[in-house]
Amino acid sequence: MDRSQIPDIVIGRLPLYLRALRHLEQAGFQITSSQDLGERLGISPAQIRKDLSLFGEFGKQGTGYTVSNLITELKRILNVESDWPVALIGVGDLGRAIANYGGFTHRGFSIEYLFDNDPEKIGTEIKGVPIKAIEEITETIKEAKVKIAMIATPAEAAQAVADMLVEAGITAILNYAPISISVPSHVQVEYTDPIVHLQQMAYYLT
Amino acid sequence: MDRSQIPDIVIGRLPLYLRALRHLEQAGFQITSSQDLGERLGISPAQIRKDLSLFGEFGKQGTGYTVSNLITELKRILNVESDWPVALIGVGDLGRAIANYGGFTHRGFSIEYLFDNDPEKIGTEIKGVPIKAIEEITETIKEAKVKIAMIATPAEAAQAVADMLVEAGITAILNYAPISISVPSHVQVEYTDPIVHLQQMAYYLT
Repeated sequence: MDRSQIPDIVIGRLPLYLRALRHLEQAGFQITSSQDLGERLGISPAQIRKDLSLFGEFGKQGTGYTVSNLITELKRILNVESDWPVALIGVGDLGRAIANYGGFTHRGFSIEYLFDNDPEKIGTEIKGVPIKAIEEITETIKEAKVKIAMIATPAEAAQAVADMLVEAGITAILNYAPISISVPSHVQVEYTDPIVHLQQMAYYLT
Repeated sequence: MDRSQIPDIVIGRLPLYLRALRHLEQAGFQITSSQDLGERLGISPAQIRKDLSLFGEFGKQGTGYTVSNLITELKRILNVESDWPVALIGVGDLGRAIANYGGFTHRGFSIEYLFDNDPEKIGTEIKGVPIKAIEEITETIKEAKVKIAMIATPAEAAQAVADMLVEAGITAILNYAPISISVPSHVQVEYTDPIVHLQQMAYYLT
């Protein structure tokens, strides 16, 4: 099937499959099944089989999926076989935590550009990456052809930063600021929001 | 329909509906439709109508949903009409960012207990909440009957902390540490993972 014909909702589930597979791999499992993945993810095994079947034949009837193979295939499908360079804007507590987080590499992303507006931070480094001034966003990102950015600024700065990023050629934004941002339709925006997870669990609390 | 009969996958979508409705409310919209919500969320309007119909009649044919009403109903369904007290374990860069994040209150949660193992942090406060020693987790959480905790420790400490939380009576854990944790089946665990969002967007990058 043509990539553009796959529903967004299916694409949204692939990273969850990939994460579950990585957890399985870390725990030493070599084989899994749609049943097993389904139980871990709260998604029906039929849905998982149907989603994967849109991209090819990855499992065998009766024996299931080879964990490492399916990881490789999903990374290929998701376009994260090698790491994309990522720009992070806002290096407060949250931005610093993100910049120091070791979990991006080997999962498709590498934070290679940091920006902040605090003169005391500009020129310092986190894990070897220098913090540049906000004013340098456009030139730096255009020149390096970076496509992905994360916004970890205060809410009130997020829209202005988003505007600069779009102007610089960014087409995918992960927004940590607790506010909606407006971007042109060719730019993707995702929000990280712990509340979504907490609310889902609250449903089951008594 | 009995609450326990609603599929998990439906419950998982309700916080997304609620967030989209809050964005609409912030932007000044008073009325919305399953079509409009669907476009914002990448979920089919039929799915949204079907999900909501499991809980009652919230919209009118032809006029759609009143944003504020649907927010109220979803908060009631999700069990987040008032704020749950939450314990946060690990007050490094990430934990500090979470503790300072203003977005929890009025969305169902209030961080009222902080724990860390750093003697220099213990006894200090963030937004009026004192940081206690890890050793005090069990007694504090048991006494206050806290049910929800967030783990923001380094990966290598997460399992030991999860064990203490379960022992103390916690039944819902949001894990920020980049590692899977094992808990008894009566305990819910969710993971916050920026990579999931980034990978979903990478699919569409060229």
